Amino acid sequence: MRNKTAVLHGVRDLRIEDREVPRPGPTEVVVQVEAVGICGSDIHYYEAGRIGEHVVRAPMVLGHEAAGTIVAAGDQVPPERIGQLVALEPGVPDGTCSQCRAGRYNLCPNVAFFATPPVDGALAQYVAIHERFAHPAPAGLTAEQAAMAEPVSVGVSACRQAAVRPGDRVLVTGAGPVGLFAAQVGRAFGATEVAVLDVNKHRLAVARELGFATLPAGVEKRQCFDVLIECSGAPAAIADGLERLSPGGRAALVGMGPQLVQVPLQAIQNRELTLTGTFRYANTYPLALSLLSSAAVLTGPVITHRLGIDDAEAALQLAHTVPDSLKAVVTP
Amino acid sequence: MRNKTAVLHGVRDLRIEDREVPRPGPTEVVVQVEAVGICGSDIHYYEAGRIGEHVVRAPMVLGHEAAGTIVAAGDQVPPERIGQLVALEPGVPDGTCSQCRAGRYNLCPNVAFFATPPVDGALAQYVAIHERFAHPAPAGLTAEQAAMAEPVSVGVSACRQAAVRPGDRVLVTGAGPVGLFAAQVGRAFGATEVAVLDVNKHRLAVARELGFATLPAGVEKRQCFDVLIECSGAPAAIADGLERLSPGGRAALVGMGPQLVQVPLQAIQNRELTLTGTFRYANTYPLALSLLSSAAVLTGPVITHRLGIDDAEAALQLAHTVPDSLKAVVTP
Amino acid sequence: MRNKTAVLHGVRDLRIEDREVPRPGPTEVVVQVEAVGICGSDIHYYEAGRIGEHVVRAPMVLGHEAAGTIVAAGDQVPPERIGQLVALEPGVPDGTCSQCRAGRYNLCPNVAFFATPPVDGALAQYVAIHERFAHPAPAGLTAEQAAMAEPVSVGVSACRQAAVRPGDRVLVTGAGPVGLFAAQVGRAFGATEVAVLDVNKHRLAVARELGFATLPAGVEKRQCFDVLIECSGAPAAIADGLERLSPGGRAALVGMGPQLVQVPLQAIQNRELTLTGTFRYANTYPLALSLLSSAAVLTGPVITHRLGIDDAEAALQLAHTVPDSLKAVVTP
Amino acid sequence: MRNKTAVLHGVRDLRIEDREVPRPGPTEVVVQVEAVGICGSDIHYYEAGRIGEHVVRAPMVLGHEAAGTIVAAGDQVPPERIGQLVALEPGVPDGTCSQCRAGRYNLCPNVAFFATPPVDGALAQYVAIHERFAHPAPAGLTAEQAAMAEPVSVGVSACRQAAVRPGDRVLVTGAGPVGLFAAQVGRAFGATEVAVLDVNKHRLAVARELGFATLPAGVEKRQCFDVLIECSGAPAAIADGLERLSPGGRAALVGMGPQLVQVPLQAIQNRELTLTGTFRYANTYPLALSLLSSAAVLTGPVITHRLGIDDAEAALQLAHTVPDSLKAVVTP
Repeated sequence: MRNKTAVLHGVRDLRIEDREVPRPGPTEVVVQVEAVGICGSDIHYYEAGRIGEHVVRAPMVLGHEAAGTIVAAGDQVPPERIGQLVALEPGVPDGTCSQCRAGRYNLCPNVAFFATPPVDGALAQYVAIHERFAHPAPAGLTAEQAAMAEPVSVGVSACRQAAVRPGDRVLVTGAGPVGLFAAQVGRAFGATEVAVLDVNKHRLAVARELGFATLPAGVEKRQCFDVLIECSGAPAAIADGLERLSPGGRAALVGMGPQLVQVPLQAIQNRELTLTGTFRYANTYPLALSLLSSAAVLTGPVITHRLGIDDAEAALQLAHTVPDSLKAVVTP
Repeated sequence: MRNKTAVLHGVRDLRIEDREVPRPGPTEVVVQVEAVGICGSDIHYYEAGRIGEHVVRAPMVLGHEAAGTIVAAGDQVPPERIGQLVALEPGVPDGTCSQCRAGRYNLCPNVAFFATPPVDGALAQYVAIHERFAHPAPAGLTAEQAAMAEPVSVGVSACRQAAVRPGDRVLVTGAGPVGLFAAQVGRAFGATEVAVLDVNKHRLAVARELGFATLPAGVEKRQCFDVLIECSGAPAAIADGLERLSPGGRAALVGMGPQLVQVPLQAIQNRELTLTGTFRYANTYPLALSLLSSAAVLTGPVITHRLGIDDAEAALQLAHTVPDSLKAVVTP
Repeated sequence: MRNKTAVLHGVRDLRIEDREVPRPGPTEVVVQVEAVGICGSDIHYYEAGRIGEHVVRAPMVLGHEAAGTIVAAGDQVPPERIGQLVALEPGVPDGTCSQCRAGRYNLCPNVAFFATPPVDGALAQYVAIHERFAHPAPAGLTAEQAAMAEPVSVGVSACRQAAVRPGDRVLVTGAGPVGLFAAQVGRAFGATEVAVLDVNKHRLAVARELGFATLPAGVEKRQCFDVLIECSGAPAAIADGLERLSPGGRAALVGMGPQLVQVPLQAIQNRELTLTGTFRYANTYPLALSLLSSAAVLTGPVITHRLGIDDAEAALQLAHTVPDSLKAVVTP
Repeated sequence: MRNKTAVLHGVRDLRIEDREVPRPGPTEVVVQVEAVGICGSDIHYYEAGRIGEHVVRAPMVLGHEAAGTIVAAGDQVPPERIGQLVALEPGVPDGTCSQCRAGRYNLCPNVAFFATPPVDGALAQYVAIHERFAHPAPAGLTAEQAAMAEPVSVGVSACRQAAVRPGDRVLVTGAGPVGLFAAQVGRAFGATEVAVLDVNKHRLAVARELGFATLPAGVEKRQCFDVLIECSGAPAAIADGLERLSPGGRAALVGMGPQLVQVPLQAIQNRELTLTGTFRYANTYPLALSLLSSAAVLTGPVITHRLGIDDAEAALQLAHTVPDSLKAVVTP
């Protein structure tokens, strides 16, 4: 085949198809994809055909955590970029709207984001992208590590939204891949204590392996954290985590949950807590790659499975078939 | 009498008593009180004997929105301060705890705050206070205006917590005294649009008199505000107001409500909204007095009743006896 | 003629030429220009043929403070924009570099800025521009006012860089057009005192007409300002202005001066002063237009001369021929 | 002797005297001092009898980088504090002035700071201090390390003033004790590159031993740093360091130098650089102690000499007698 591609045709209907190798536009590069992480949103599209208002109406390529090597470059791209290992930042904004101009390009209403309908993703052997969103990996990084710049970026954005500062005591609720990366990012931001809370003992064990204190859910509440990075989306964890913040505490809400959740209004007021939502990320890739390169953020304990593109469907089912799985990476 | 004082002895048991005129400590001044605004919290203590964890266990003087003239000064106070008209900032913090040292002295765990058990308030003819918390009123201000520096400070703090910036479009929900002052403060911070939402037609009329656009509750939701200053405490208003914020929007939660409230998690995430609680204020009095002095903040339409100290109990009952009343001021 | 255009061919060699009316690119609009302010940089290019490293090597159209009416629109532009009065933001950045992505698009190394070699300016009857940089003027604004959104934007950027906050005491040094606009912007940001310092008595009179306190140069130094907006570029004014800042004070350096200037190191350290340079502006036009529309910023006292495009050369010489002139506007 | 104390009586006139052991005030503790670092300011008072406006007019105890064990506590201090190893924050502010209330207590005009005339320092066997300024050392820290919380605090404050963020490239000019600590703090703040520049080869060798890239003075200027921490006070280093900052760069000026210095105005403007002075520190001790405790900041290569209190004068002369000396610590 020329460009083996994993295409979602409908609920639980993933097909490996042969597509044309894309040609680069003037400011684009074509990347031979070497690693694509599977994200909860990929699994959700596979199982439900939609995420909220985003409905898959036509066949769509999945995958947005990708890295690979540049094999072709458009007219306006320096030709010496060919051969570079790059991490692909999956959302290309319009660059001129008011959100873009304010530096919040993650909120651009016209962003084209991999594997968000109707935009195709990167679970393929070749993909084209604007060259400025193909970030050079530091020397020594593997494609698999570079692909993890995407979930690490979520952690970077969360730590920025919660204004993690040196000396902070940080609580991370939810020890899935995003939580485990966010905890490591928080430590790299200078947090002097980082604790991880989850109901899953296996995930807590991974957190301990990464050097974090762990709290089982239900442990007595004490107001001893400056920052909450909420990565579970569970309403109970959100309310519980907020109660644990000390005066002036800050929370970033990362985990996706129900439309409405309850928050402790009086605690928020009496302790002047700040809550911020997070939506993807902006201006994070160079830092995420740097953190991966310096081993401030480790991927080893988080990536539990590696599969070929022909097994992409199995990768999407892992969360159910292997309960203790964390992150699966597909190598096209 | 020497120092006529309004003392709360229990639920709905307010007595006018004669107390000693206080003597100033070395860093204190004694103020002859000329105006004390009645706040919702005073009414709450009068009617329920408590606010949350704060329970009135011994007779307590009410009142924390006070202004008057310095009549005596301690050893370490410049004697020329005698005769000054001052606004009394009602919370004196310890000055050395970590919150104080960080500039958030409103969160000092050891603050002594007027009319918060067991600390006596200022609804009396004479009261003593640390001289640094007796703020000189600009020339031309009346005692009544100076007393309003307290609720105006709540508005200043809310606008700071919500980071109101020039050009912002601000929605104020709840058009009681705090909301009407906060809306004026928002305009003084450079907001180019300020709209006020309430269920009470009389309050909306006052808002219009002050130059604001008004929205009846239930009006169609559009995401056209950058900032929400929530002053009602009503759960519906909180959720509704948050839905009206545009991407990157910020909300300050001022109005006191139930322990728990529902917030729209997905809207907070998808638009990266920020919510912040507010608890009293810090470093606001000079600005509040300046805004009152320049007529950027008007008290005229907000102060609806003026009573003597002998009628303090009637002032506490006004909210129920006169539905359209806003702020009552007692003149000892 | 089809498109009368003022072209600089060399030092003091300005020619009115007939050029093609531009056609809009897909995302562009063509604007019939109705007002172009003359800036010090236009005068400098006319008199010296260069500003620092920016050298006029080929004939170049001058003018970057422009407003007019949209008369044609590209394919991707909503056709209803035709007929709109717009202010032209003169610098169009690349939208994808790291500075653009961080929201500092004024620092984009690839920006195309009107009348900065080799990019042509707007001193013509028709000019094309990216539609997102053609900002709709609020109803009631004149083209001349809309053109002033450019120097007002310099003031907005300066006040942001110096973090002007409500209650601040602001000193503006240099009462030329930029200083007079910056002072008005500072007041709109909530500064409670704004004082203007200059050596020119006429300019101080204009400042007083706009309601500002004025200081003659050489007046006794007191540390009584929170913010310095330095618009003169004069080394003495920079050092003098910094000395007048109180502890924690902030200064924005706007006026262009020599390569090197002396600053009072010990004052900067002992009072923890902050100095920030300003280079053009980003994300300012909507606010600048709003301030002009609400009359928070007045152009009347600042615009002293109005000329037709045939008199463009006279407009460039006004600063020398009419010493008390402030801003000249050319109406093509 | 009861309380052996190093008292400066005049230029180069240091005497070891026997003084009373202090008694604690109600909120004070008395500390048996175990380590006192010698600072450049101590040396300056010893050699010149003054620093700028601060003139030693009466005998004054030197030393402000101190740590030791609490041996007595005032009435309002928890008695269990006796026995704690503490680092002494040397400046006790008034706690109520506008600077203190804003969280900038280092700028308090009434601060009592060890070894700044007329306040006695801590180069003694026993010293009293407000208990809130005696910070508990984390378990495992030595008194010598705890004493270094003072110069580490200078580094923390500099990194905050320059807003060092994860991913930043930081240049430290001047590799004395403060520069070497600041560089380590910058790394702990998440800087991904930290380079140190000095003229002294020995100091550069220590910087390399601590893991930093080093630049000899005079190396070709490239704009490749986001942050400058200027610790030399040398006018050439200030100007040179600023030229090396990339657009949006930030500089903290720490090193004490002449009254006036030259800065590159056009570079500051064209690249929108920010310069901030630093004066001591506020809210730094807990973080500084934490960084020392986690070995993020090492004292080993910085402390080159240790002497008894009887040799205090020799410690003050080391900078001249041992050119490659860095920090001397006196152990009373």
